[in-house]
Amino acid sequence: MGRKKRETTGDAESGRFAYDGLDRALHEKARLGILTSLVAHPDGLKFAELRGLCALTDGNLSRHLDVLRESGLVEVWKGFEGRRPQTLVRLTTDGRRRFVEYLEELERVVRDALPKAESAPTRAKQLPPGWQPA
Amino acid sequence: MGRKKRETTGDAESGRFAYDGLDRALHEKARLGILTSLVAHPDGLKFAELRGLCALTDGNLSRHLDVLRESGLVEVWKGFEGRRPQTLVRLTTDGRRRFVEYLEELERVVRDALPKAESAPTRAKQLPPGWQPA
Repeated sequence: MGRKKRETTGDAESGRFAYDGLDRALHEKARLGILTSLVAHPDGLKFAELRGLCALTDGNLSRHLDVLRESGLVEVWKGFEGRRPQTLVRLTTDGRRRFVEYLEELERVVRDALPKAESAPTRAKQLPPGWQPA
Repeated sequence: MGRKKRETTGDAESGRFAYDGLDRALHEKARLGILTSLVAHPDGLKFAELRGLCALTDGNLSRHLDVLRESGLVEVWKGFEGRRPQTLVRLTTDGRRRFVEYLEELERVVRDALPKAESAPTRAKQLPPGWQPA
């Protein structure tokens, strides 16, 4: 017991699974989709293209773009194509760098967890008598 | 333009980056840490061990455990070790299966995005005159 306790709560392991690198601005599911779309299109995507790729409503996409812009991850441009007003969204240079770092952290999560999840026994040990579901 | 538009908003690509497999119960950063801790400990972790590994407060850990329990991902047991009351948290069988599926989806995200993010040009094309930051 003593040994196990040190292993799992000692200094070396403290915060081992805190994943501080998973910045919430990038980690939120819809924003992750937006960033992944944009990274595949370095010259930017129009609002309607992004909306389609991410299956978001106008309102949701706008709200998430506000968060990404306030975090300095994307830039939003307004212009015209012929007479049609257009909105173009691109990753910033800093956004691209931070997205790469985020993806590397995500890769570590998968590498931490997936082998253990796949190889673990499907049934846990029986608990001693007297233990009850909370 | 016509070709590009079809490529990025056509049916084949619609929702391409929606990532529906990223269930919010599992994807939230703190809960991802909790699940990764638990998957490495199939016989469960005590509340205090989990709190240390994930660098969470009592209140935050309790709140996230409620979400995970309500989603059927973990089970919480109460018992005694000697005279000390203990709380033990374990992944459910279904929780383990769903966590593996989630991790596989995360792996697809990284595989989608990381090569593009690393190889993309650091500067986007200049926009035509008349475009302005929103």
